[in-house]
Amino acid sequence: MALVHFPVYNKTGEIVVSSVTTLDVHDSSRICRTYGAGVLYIVTPLETQQKLVDRIISHWKTGHGATYNPTRKEALLKSQVNNSLEDVIADITARSGQKPRTIVTHARELDRSVGYDAMRKKLNKDEQYLLIFGTGWGLEKNIIEKADYLLNPIKGSEEYNHLPVRAAIAIILDRLLGVGR
Amino acid sequence: MALVHFPVYNKTGEIVVSSVTTLDVHDSSRICRTYGAGVLYIVTPLETQQKLVDRIISHWKTGHGATYNPTRKEALLKSQVNNSLEDVIADITARSGQKPRTIVTHARELDRSVGYDAMRKKLNKDEQYLLIFGTGWGLEKNIIEKADYLLNPIKGSEEYNHLPVRAAIAIILDRLLGVGR
Repeated sequence: MALVHFPVYNKTGEIVVSSVTTLDVHDSSRICRTYGAGVLYIVTPLETQQKLVDRIISHWKTGHGATYNPTRKEALLKSQVNNSLEDVIADITARSGQKPRTIVTHARELDRSVGYDAMRKKLNKDEQYLLIFGTGWGLEKNIIEKADYLLNPIKGSEEYNHLPVRAAIAIILDRLLGVGR
Repeated sequence: MALVHFPVYNKTGEIVVSSVTTLDVHDSSRICRTYGAGVLYIVTPLETQQKLVDRIISHWKTGHGATYNPTRKEALLKSQVNNSLEDVIADITARSGQKPRTIVTHARELDRSVGYDAMRKKLNKDEQYLLIFGTGWGLEKNIIEKADYLLNPIKGSEEYNHLPVRAAIAIILDRLLGVGR
């Protein structure tokens, strides 16, 4: 899974680099670990932000945090920071020998959007998949357009549609990979 | 829904008051609003913590935050702080004329645990329900024992079982109330 901080939109529709929310690194790591989602990639091109994420991950993996909170260590073992989505795709291809199929979410339902049960059935154990989440006001439109699969927006029972990205990650991984419903 | 900070266990199994995580107030409010979960009750007996939660809610409902971020205002309109679970149950009973049935989650599967699809089918529009989440290391055992319904633990695809409470809230509301899967 990738949590992307560039290119994303800001409140006024400009393409920006959003700031890493350290809590999202922790929450996403735990959620990925729970659902067996391979590697968590935190994507940002800003060197200072990359260093911040590296420092968080190192603290919990090998620093004082590793003994203080072993379950957090375990969650972060498969988390890493990368420069760009292209780098992430190259990393997965190098690890697995396969270019991953990309899956994105979008706040509006588009013609080619697919439901969660349908996507779950498409998932094939012999393929690699990269589930991409945008921060800020969402992924830049070229990423949406180029993605292999586009998931339906999450619907609750109300029109209100402003979930934090960490809640969307939890719900979507559960819909695609959860068991024991 | 109630997010309970007392009585809960700490890391070493003592019954304590856990601290309110301000972010959980925001995330839980947005998740409740998305899934139409009526009122969000933040439960703590500590007056200083009650004041903190009141100040957060007021800031976004009527302070500067209300114009800066209207979707957060909307999320927090139905959030409030209460002294105890008994007070929450009294409040729901006073609002609706019905004592709510209580639903709790627990990290281990017990004999009387119920699945999510089964619980979803039991939900009756003519009844009031109170979904109770514990913070810290989980709800004190009398609350579990006295609850009308006990949900199965959330399972991902791995043995790892350490989701943040805000992720558990998102997943459980989606399992019980989400549509468009």
